[in-house]
Amino acid sequence: MEIKILNGRTLAAEPGKSVYQALRDNGVYLVASCGGKGVCGKCRVKILEGKYRTESATKLKKKEIGDKVVLACTTFPEEDIHIEIPEDSKLVIGDKIAVSKSKGFLDFLRSEEPTLTPPVRKIMLSLLPPSIEDNLSDVERVKRSLSEHDIEEMRFSHGFVQSLAKALRQHNWTAYLTYTENFEAISIVSPERVKHYGLAVDIGTTTVVVYLVDCTDGTLLDTGVTYNSQMRHGDDVITRIVHATEGGALQELRNAVVDDINGLLNAMMERNHISRDDIDSAVISGNTTMVQLFWGLDPSSIREEPYIPTVNSYPAWRAGTAKLLINHQAPVYTIPCVGSYVGGDITAGLLASKMHRNPEIALFMDIGTNGEIVVGNNEWLITAATSAGPCFEGSGIRHGMRATEGAIESVKINPTTFDVELGVIGNVEPAGICGSGMIDALSEFFFAGIIDQKGKFSRDLNSDRIRIEEEGPEFVLHHGETKDIVLTEVDIENLLRAKAAIYAGMSVLLKEVGLSLDIVERIYIAGGFGNYLNVEKAIMIGMLPDMPKEKFSFIGNTSIAGAYLCLLSEKMRREAEDIAKKMTYIELSVSHGFMDEYMSALFLPHTNIDLFPSVRERYNKEE
Amino acid sequence: MEIKILNGRTLAAEPGKSVYQALRDNGVYLVASCGGKGVCGKCRVKILEGKYRTESATKLKKKEIGDKVVLACTTFPEEDIHIEIPEDSKLVIGDKIAVSKSKGFLDFLRSEEPTLTPPVRKIMLSLLPPSIEDNLSDVERVKRSLSEHDIEEMRFSHGFVQSLAKALRQHNWTAYLTYTENFEAISIVSPERVKHYGLAVDIGTTTVVVYLVDCTDGTLLDTGVTYNSQMRHGDDVITRIVHATEGGALQELRNAVVDDINGLLNAMMERNHISRDDIDSAVISGNTTMVQLFWGLDPSSIREEPYIPTVNSYPAWRAGTAKLLINHQAPVYTIPCVGSYVGGDITAGLLASKMHRNPEIALFMDIGTNGEIVVGNNEWLITAATSAGPCFEGSGIRHGMRATEGAIESVKINPTTFDVELGVIGNVEPAGICGSGMIDALSEFFFAGIIDQKGKFSRDLNSDRIRIEEEGPEFVLHHGETKDIVLTEVDIENLLRAKAAIYAGMSVLLKEVGLSLDIVERIYIAGGFGNYLNVEKAIMIGMLPDMPKEKFSFIGNTSIAGAYLCLLSEKMRREAEDIAKKMTYIELSVSHGFMDEYMSALFLPHTNIDLFPSVRERYNKEE
Repeated sequence: MEIKILNGRTLAAEPGKSVYQALRDNGVYLVASCGGKGVCGKCRVKILEGKYRTESATKLKKKEIGDKVVLACTTFPEEDIHIEIPEDSKLVIGDKIAVSKSKGFLDFLRSEEPTLTPPVRKIMLSLLPPSIEDNLSDVERVKRSLSEHDIEEMRFSHGFVQSLAKALRQHNWTAYLTYTENFEAISIVSPERVKHYGLAVDIGTTTVVVYLVDCTDGTLLDTGVTYNSQMRHGDDVITRIVHATEGGALQELRNAVVDDINGLLNAMMERNHISRDDIDSAVISGNTTMVQLFWGLDPSSIREEPYIPTVNSYPAWRAGTAKLLINHQAPVYTIPCVGSYVGGDITAGLLASKMHRNPEIALFMDIGTNGEIVVGNNEWLITAATSAGPCFEGSGIRHGMRATEGAIESVKINPTTFDVELGVIGNVEPAGICGSGMIDALSEFFFAGIIDQKGKFSRDLNSDRIRIEEEGPEFVLHHGETKDIVLTEVDIENLLRAKAAIYAGMSVLLKEVGLSLDIVERIYIAGGFGNYLNVEKAIMIGMLPDMPKEKFSFIGNTSIAGAYLCLLSEKMRREAEDIAKKMTYIELSVSHGFMDEYMSALFLPHTNIDLFPSVRERYNKEE
Repeated sequence: MEIKILNGRTLAAEPGKSVYQALRDNGVYLVASCGGKGVCGKCRVKILEGKYRTESATKLKKKEIGDKVVLACTTFPEEDIHIEIPEDSKLVIGDKIAVSKSKGFLDFLRSEEPTLTPPVRKIMLSLLPPSIEDNLSDVERVKRSLSEHDIEEMRFSHGFVQSLAKALRQHNWTAYLTYTENFEAISIVSPERVKHYGLAVDIGTTTVVVYLVDCTDGTLLDTGVTYNSQMRHGDDVITRIVHATEGGALQELRNAVVDDINGLLNAMMERNHISRDDIDSAVISGNTTMVQLFWGLDPSSIREEPYIPTVNSYPAWRAGTAKLLINHQAPVYTIPCVGSYVGGDITAGLLASKMHRNPEIALFMDIGTNGEIVVGNNEWLITAATSAGPCFEGSGIRHGMRATEGAIESVKINPTTFDVELGVIGNVEPAGICGSGMIDALSEFFFAGIIDQKGKFSRDLNSDRIRIEEEGPEFVLHHGETKDIVLTEVDIENLLRAKAAIYAGMSVLLKEVGLSLDIVERIYIAGGFGNYLNVEKAIMIGMLPDMPKEKFSFIGNTSIAGAYLCLLSEKMRREAEDIAKKMTYIELSVSHGFMDEYMSALFLPHTNIDLFPSVRERYNKEE
């Protein structure tokens, strides 16, 4: 059977496979937060022609069903069909995402240590050529020379020894030996090749960022960014763990992200005329699940109580083992994780924030899918994941999307007329709403009296922007020609859950150490989301604590920044290990205190308004 | 085209390929000392029918050429042919070879150390199952437990970590951890599996011997022996190096010997009901070339002046790397080599002889292809290879063969009648002559006046046993129905070269340290050949020094014995390393002194008869 796509290709479809699977098999990816299980309702396609069977209509409206809109994941062709894929349903991979700059970090490293200390070192060997009288083997000849440099502990892998005889003779017994900081030999390199390179990699649940770095002077040569292709199998880590274990797709997920990295790498090598073998180290930063999937480690126990990762402090395995297409023997350093839901990306984040070095008590938060929070200073650190969920990144919200072109990023509502003023990324026709827009909207709804403290729409407002649909009431942010952009009451429930989780996480974490929020002198907000967040509005809805704006620092993608630091400095790698060891990891999902805090934080801004004096003040003013 | 074998299969033959190659491609192997280069004249087949082209008739007699006997390696079918393969030309693989017993060595180990110390250790881990409060990762949990046993330095490979989560849960957090003596984790093993096993392997140029050993009590459970399949590509190490490098067949040679070992292993595992994963260590002993080929290391520099191996002291790489089909993570220890032509088999031999522990000056010799010799005691050791060549193993001798059924192993000749009395292995119709038979014959020829001091046949003897053929004179040891067994003057030249090389090697080695042969208090003779050697006759021809018979010890296959010792004892592994480091390796092929000694030793027994008083005495008596 065949599937013909409007304005697109015609693809073969195996009988028994869903439209979603058939498209995927042919490289056409649809948005599917639930991983293609008929739950999230995002993989909508419209059937233009042909017989089909469909099993689920979750989240489809009557009109859509009438228009033959179906969920691709539970729809099965019964003959050749012709379909249309709405723009919303297409998963876009490869667009550019802002990354933080390296210059400041390089200056910082230079202030810390006289020379850069990447995971791989070089030593020039000037060997005496062998003779009948001096007939040491090649390996023993190298060892003798190293011994003269007081290096006695070098280890030689099979791969290294296999290439040694030829390499030494080719370079006439004078060449660089590259080796890891743990004294494992990597390769013999021509004395003319003075430069060597490294990769810093941030494997996010959503995006993958790769830095190509000159390890001799620390220059960031090139940056590559792409969406994590594992998204085909769901937006959040839990869906992917299920896919890896119950779906038996561990290798598939592993290969997906490794291919993403290698793809970016290939383009960068070509652009910068750098050969594979000269990239002799890599540092990987990511959350615990992402890192286990990268290394092909079964992540099932992360998801099952008591939520145990296989390893937090990773040995430096080889690039060949990782399947990274750089020097086969290159060590791949993994930034240490802390627990099942606080990973190396948070360790890297703390390292980049430097809060672990200062006496002031600070709070670090990464408002992404896991909503990790750390509190502490140079003496102690405590951390938890709030499972905020991916709704600020667009998932679980009817018209949610990431902060890319067409996303509503700011919302103003006239409290009298309910007229709406929107800020849209790229100043184009709005296609959806991103995290900062959602926070704005929530805050504006609340102060305009459109929703109450529980997030429920007021039933007695007279505006054509508020309408009751099958699933409940919704607010029309934008009347579009082809579609309206709305926030539904269900969306608002999800947003309240996310913001409550974040606030409750902070409170509980502080209570664990017997402190309250007012002891916190600085709040670091990390993650792509942080770049767009309106702090005041986030305080208004009770997501961030009510503190002066100047106490908040937006520090961008600190996961890649920390990876970059670790790539260039042994001191930073040791600090990262110290940070990970020092962090006390609390499992909030089983904490009784958390549930209480969470229930209180489900209100706008909170059941205890005294916690938010500036909100109370404005609320009283506007009443 | 097709080749039909008399009483055998019909095989496909690609045009342009020789009969030898076509047979080999179909798994039919012929004897070919030269590796199929038209030189050794051993791969004879008889063409019964069909057109063919032949390029070389080296060593073929006129009558044979008339009978359409050809060398398979230089004969090319031009249409379907029908051939007969004489028994002599067939390479027999798989017959049993005597191996030395393990009992004595086990008693020795027990007297040395209270417990056995194989390269892999076991520790019982009783881990606290993880909980929300005690949420260490699996690896860190194992580390904590090891730390309680004062083990801090364990390293974890990717393969180990990949299987860890499942294994710990499967065994309910109580299991053995197996690890190498260098603290590299191997596997998690059920607490019920108390036994673990190891392999000792001797890779000889000719034969491969494998011991399956119970590492908990040292019992030798089973023994496997086969010919080294690399023999298809030539009898000696030089031919194989050429094949590996110029022929680009390094991987082919590597796979050949690895397959030999795995084949023996499979049969042994089945017979003893032992599973692959429970065999968690291996020790490899072999000459330098055999070991480099086993590990897939390009051996070319071994053959080129100044004759340098890639590595002498091998790291313990993993079974997965070696392609040995035992536990993938098992360490494979390689007994250290000394130089290009003195390998780990000699280190193992010394270890088994224990001469490195005693103050008496001893001489160790392995009369095989390389003819390695060691002189020394507990203070010093000096060694060289004499390149004696493989003629005592049958190669380069018209009717030479190994010491298997049908081989003439002893010869007596009546000096008056020239009647011959033969001892034949298996008491069957003789098929050829093996090393001990050759030494006997040479000695008897000399004392009966059949040959002179230079090994030339006396032209004035009247006996139908001495006849002049195309290639020169020869002595008929056996008049057979289908063929006669002879020793030719060319054979005798080869034997003289071999015995001269051995004797000259000993002399030069002793001179290097300013000593003479009479200081030697013991001579150890190792190797399969040693089992059958008649010392007195070997002295008569001037191959062994003229010393009382009781000073000679035949110690059998010490290469496998040394491997067995190293498999069970860390102390023995350290001793093997000390031995290898202590040995001073002399390259005889470039020594001027060696050529002088060699020329003198080409006589029977020697130009200086004073070196052989017992020979002089008998000679004078019989004159």
